[in-house]
Amino acid sequence: MSKAKRVGILTSGGDCGGLNAVIRAVVRRAREWDMEVYGIKGATQGLMSRPVESELLDMKRVSGILRYGGTILGTVNKGNPFAYPLSDGETIDRSQEVIDGYHQLGLDALIGIGGDGSLAILRRLAQQGNMNLVAVPKTIDNDLGATENSIGFNTAVSVAVEALDRLTYTAISHSRVMILEVMGRDAGHIAVSAGIAGGAHVILIPEIPYDLDKVCDRLMNRALRGFNFSTMVVAEAVKTPSGEPVRYTNSLGQTLYGGIGQYLGDQISTRTNMESRVTILGHVQRGSTPSPLDRILGAAFGVAAVDLVAHKQYDRMVAWINREVISVPISEAIAQYRAVDVQGTLIRTALGLGTYIGEID
Amino acid sequence: MSKAKRVGILTSGGDCGGLNAVIRAVVRRAREWDMEVYGIKGATQGLMSRPVESELLDMKRVSGILRYGGTILGTVNKGNPFAYPLSDGETIDRSQEVIDGYHQLGLDALIGIGGDGSLAILRRLAQQGNMNLVAVPKTIDNDLGATENSIGFNTAVSVAVEALDRLTYTAISHSRVMILEVMGRDAGHIAVSAGIAGGAHVILIPEIPYDLDKVCDRLMNRALRGFNFSTMVVAEAVKTPSGEPVRYTNSLGQTLYGGIGQYLGDQISTRTNMESRVTILGHVQRGSTPSPLDRILGAAFGVAAVDLVAHKQYDRMVAWINREVISVPISEAIAQYRAVDVQGTLIRTALGLGTYIGEID
Amino acid sequence: MSKAKRVGILTSGGDCGGLNAVIRAVVRRAREWDMEVYGIKGATQGLMSRPVESELLDMKRVSGILRYGGTILGTVNKGNPFAYPLSDGETIDRSQEVIDGYHQLGLDALIGIGGDGSLAILRRLAQQGNMNLVAVPKTIDNDLGATENSIGFNTAVSVAVEALDRLTYTAISHSRVMILEVMGRDAGHIAVSAGIAGGAHVILIPEIPYDLDKVCDRLMNRALRGFNFSTMVVAEAVKTPSGEPVRYTNSLGQTLYGGIGQYLGDQISTRTNMESRVTILGHVQRGSTPSPLDRILGAAFGVAAVDLVAHKQYDRMVAWINREVISVPISEAIAQYRAVDVQGTLIRTALGLGTYIGEID
Amino acid sequence: MSKAKRVGILTSGGDCGGLNAVIRAVVRRAREWDMEVYGIKGATQGLMSRPVESELLDMKRVSGILRYGGTILGTVNKGNPFAYPLSDGETIDRSQEVIDGYHQLGLDALIGIGGDGSLAILRRLAQQGNMNLVAVPKTIDNDLGATENSIGFNTAVSVAVEALDRLTYTAISHSRVMILEVMGRDAGHIAVSAGIAGGAHVILIPEIPYDLDKVCDRLMNRALRGFNFSTMVVAEAVKTPSGEPVRYTNSLGQTLYGGIGQYLGDQISTRTNMESRVTILGHVQRGSTPSPLDRILGAAFGVAAVDLVAHKQYDRMVAWINREVISVPISEAIAQYRAVDVQGTLIRTALGLGTYIGEID
Repeated sequence: MSKAKRVGILTSGGDCGGLNAVIRAVVRRAREWDMEVYGIKGATQGLMSRPVESELLDMKRVSGILRYGGTILGTVNKGNPFAYPLSDGETIDRSQEVIDGYHQLGLDALIGIGGDGSLAILRRLAQQGNMNLVAVPKTIDNDLGATENSIGFNTAVSVAVEALDRLTYTAISHSRVMILEVMGRDAGHIAVSAGIAGGAHVILIPEIPYDLDKVCDRLMNRALRGFNFSTMVVAEAVKTPSGEPVRYTNSLGQTLYGGIGQYLGDQISTRTNMESRVTILGHVQRGSTPSPLDRILGAAFGVAAVDLVAHKQYDRMVAWINREVISVPISEAIAQYRAVDVQGTLIRTALGLGTYIGEID
Repeated sequence: MSKAKRVGILTSGGDCGGLNAVIRAVVRRAREWDMEVYGIKGATQGLMSRPVESELLDMKRVSGILRYGGTILGTVNKGNPFAYPLSDGETIDRSQEVIDGYHQLGLDALIGIGGDGSLAILRRLAQQGNMNLVAVPKTIDNDLGATENSIGFNTAVSVAVEALDRLTYTAISHSRVMILEVMGRDAGHIAVSAGIAGGAHVILIPEIPYDLDKVCDRLMNRALRGFNFSTMVVAEAVKTPSGEPVRYTNSLGQTLYGGIGQYLGDQISTRTNMESRVTILGHVQRGSTPSPLDRILGAAFGVAAVDLVAHKQYDRMVAWINREVISVPISEAIAQYRAVDVQGTLIRTALGLGTYIGEID
Repeated sequence: MSKAKRVGILTSGGDCGGLNAVIRAVVRRAREWDMEVYGIKGATQGLMSRPVESELLDMKRVSGILRYGGTILGTVNKGNPFAYPLSDGETIDRSQEVIDGYHQLGLDALIGIGGDGSLAILRRLAQQGNMNLVAVPKTIDNDLGATENSIGFNTAVSVAVEALDRLTYTAISHSRVMILEVMGRDAGHIAVSAGIAGGAHVILIPEIPYDLDKVCDRLMNRALRGFNFSTMVVAEAVKTPSGEPVRYTNSLGQTLYGGIGQYLGDQISTRTNMESRVTILGHVQRGSTPSPLDRILGAAFGVAAVDLVAHKQYDRMVAWINREVISVPISEAIAQYRAVDVQGTLIRTALGLGTYIGEID
Repeated sequence: MSKAKRVGILTSGGDCGGLNAVIRAVVRRAREWDMEVYGIKGATQGLMSRPVESELLDMKRVSGILRYGGTILGTVNKGNPFAYPLSDGETIDRSQEVIDGYHQLGLDALIGIGGDGSLAILRRLAQQGNMNLVAVPKTIDNDLGATENSIGFNTAVSVAVEALDRLTYTAISHSRVMILEVMGRDAGHIAVSAGIAGGAHVILIPEIPYDLDKVCDRLMNRALRGFNFSTMVVAEAVKTPSGEPVRYTNSLGQTLYGGIGQYLGDQISTRTNMESRVTILGHVQRGSTPSPLDRILGAAFGVAAVDLVAHKQYDRMVAWINREVISVPISEAIAQYRAVDVQGTLIRTALGLGTYIGEID
């Protein structure tokens, strides 16, 4: 088997800080191994297009990109090739088109950057289509268990802490309860880290049930002790105490899900005489200038991913464990989901600070 | 008439960046004139309380505060003493309590920091109760016509531009239309400044009617020219094209007003095949670390306000005109509302950049 | 005379925040007038090269650049074409090469962005060589008298204030005098604005003589009143009290000029028992993400400059006066130097805050 | 043995981001255990003073401090009580005064926050004077081997990366070599992390010898490939290639050590025709708003330190290993110095990116 000469790279799923650092590192490292790097546009969408949408990436193209948010390659977080959505609501299998695209481009390997969902799809494609895949973990939710850190999480936390700092000043000025809703589709990692770093008095995450009376007690107790304000961080995945998702009706009359922050604000204002305000942080968590840590992770992962390709160690994901980059089988990586550890240091720290973080036995 | 010896200071209305710089400057300047400064808590609420809620402010107390958001004195943006809200929905006149509070505290003068609404109320109190008032303009909306700059505006714009920068990166990554809803209850100044500085492709403000088809044309035209993303800034005061306020129903089943950003996102997604996402920036615009300009304004206004008190030039507001601090009668200041000048340099600049900013003849 | 169709643009002198916003605005506005824009590389150096070093700038090329520091065109702050330095220390006149370059490129007009030195050279070239010149003012020193604001100043002040905030915290922690040396080759504008916004206790600028004993008195007086720390801002152009420039000898044994910050630190430590530390802010003042104000100025100036070209109003500079962009003859603009106004609002504000700012009658 | 009721806390050595987060966490956690917390002023200096300089810390006092740089308790990085410097240059042993201060204050335990030097002194005092010591590691150099992270490092790296980003833009604009000198008295951790995250082309650290010709080759090679600029990061502890410390003569004629950045700039300009500029980052690395990670570490360490006191586990240091807080004997902690691992992931990453990082076999 000959040396890998042509490597594709794509970013898949939601964008985040640090993706461009990976792309830059891959291009720089590939030069040492005499490999060409093709950037695939819009995740698997680019491989499905004819001609394949891609771009030969050289040093000039990636110069400076490590300090920009998002991904220069574009990404999508829908469009699973195995169940590609049609306009009539039906889906079709377009996986073979992706595989054909890979081979038409003459790739020897593909570096895929994504979270567990994206990596599972990419792996299935790789197995079906004889593609040589190396994976790089990214998810602002940091819920991939096989790696201590995934790209994007630290940047998202930084943006959330900055917002919480700002909300604290206005909370104090107006004697209010300020609620910050942060990302976290399943896991509460951003909420816990940002809540501790930003000094939140209540942190609600999907991993721990909560009691609205206890939340209100905590807030009123602060007022009794002379603190006229409070701040709360809640992960978007948190549901009502009874476990129902929150619902609201938009200006078009459509029923939509989401809005736990607003729900909590409404409940608190109804149950206490405290004024509350809600901020939904949203997509600014993704597009910020990448934090130093996400750039370092990106650089280390990018270099290591190319080295895996050079050594033909395919079907593996790079991971960060004990301050070192290692690699693990992708199959193993996507099987290990990491929720917030309810017995872990961060939850103990939050409790130790007197934060209300839900009903823990 | 003897020298002013005891000065009160209060912050009224919504908080913003730069208030603490005024408070610090007042305390530092008052020392030179041998005046004592009493900080009144919670705007006129503090003067209504018995005993009056206030605090003698010395140099230690104000050390370092110029770099913190909000106001160390607290503020309220409800509770007009002439129509004070009761729990049953009725209102009563509590103006005399405020006036009595001023005299009980033995104040020779009061420095009131607020926007047009707050300043009108403070002036009415001053006239009715023989209070010596000097005013300092603050409003993130920057709609006080008598001064080129009011405290808080520049900080709010900075936060909005930072958010727009971040949203641009994620817009590019996902080929989306990103809509940023910024503050601006009546005027569109934040939206115009942030939109130009952040490179928005559409800016909508209450001063200029708009056409949704034209908005969509602008966005689709960009896509045709190869730009797969767009960003929009909209002031919260913008209504539907027909002039109706936007309405939605929350999780408690209550009908609420607001949400122009979401309305526009829904409309664009319905009328085009473009994906949109909405971010409501909210209170982070108020609580951010004050910008250099708001701190300089705060310092200059604070020093000048004390000098007005020292020279017994009451019933006047400090103002920033042509790089100098001057003073104007409060009556005149609150009579001059400044909307965005549709013929002005900024609107011409936005148009010159190719931005859609509504239907201008 | 026919319509201008091909416009060159160059950036000259030290780089700063906001240059790219001008370039972007010029390209966007030129499209409306059907003009082509050629970016000249490295100021007049690009016009001297054969072939001329330039690049046709389109919308893609300038997309997103408004948020990056520096200039995508490159710049030099040496290499006056009328006295071009040779390696032997002699100079020659290369002005005709620049002029020839302009005509070889077929330009109808040139938009030159620079400070007073650069603009004087460009104007001389234009007059000698029949070039149609429109000027845009930029200088972090803000010493061009014909415009209230020049591009780059506000960004530099923001960086300096951020540094002063950080130094204040460490000053407090260690009971030190922290000295921040900021840019300002002739004028003290950055020092005054940053000093006020950052709460400095001593501000030294070239426009005002100072007395080292008074500086030390001010610092010791603070210590007596219980403040164990102080911060100072000094403009790099400040000399020793006797008017001598500061000198030091580097590791190569060469005598160099500069280092007023270190001089002051040494003097203070020698004359008092206070510990001092010095930070020379340097080039980070130039390369920071442009502030919102510098981007707005850049956009407004860029649009207005193209409009001047379109209307054949040459030999003029755009300027910002009273919240409007106007234009003035370049000859007039470069004749008006603006030092810090010793009687102005900012100096009065600094004095009002109790800052030592030198010996003012 | 009765329950600990009164705990002292002090910060020792250079200040940094995250110290206040520890202090806040200690106060909040102590409340749960019914302990009083006394903040000692100026490290061991406060215990030497009579009366002891200390302050009872309650929740109000520590409210909000987690977002401020430095330490509210003050610190010193000289004044070893075992060899206390006198004005005549001699030293005396004042250790017993510190010990007496501890007992006079009626402390049951002392939480000492410091680096290896400070902790060694505190431990010696504790052993000699029967003091119950619990240690918290902080050092921007991150050279304590017993913990993966020490407080202050991440914040310092963030400031350095921000500076490098800014210098890169101005480097590009002026075709220069920009040299950033960062802190790191013995170890190169800040330089390595900031250099990778900021995209530096050369990183020099004390752990790895370097060759000036190779540095110049690297820079000229970039120029040959069309990159007209380069950035370098150098740790302050780096010496000349021959191992000599750098020397210069200040304006008072004194010979001083330091200035490796300037040395390198002078050498590069002499050996190549490239223009270089040097920035010495200095104390802004210490005083910045603490990064989220330093706040989280601070919170976790503070809670854990109080719990160690509560369980009378003295003579131990809290440490961060594998995402958990553990504790280790102080003796062990101060014995483990951590230099940059020349075989580790970060050095391999830098090499993989093509960075020149010195002469590695």
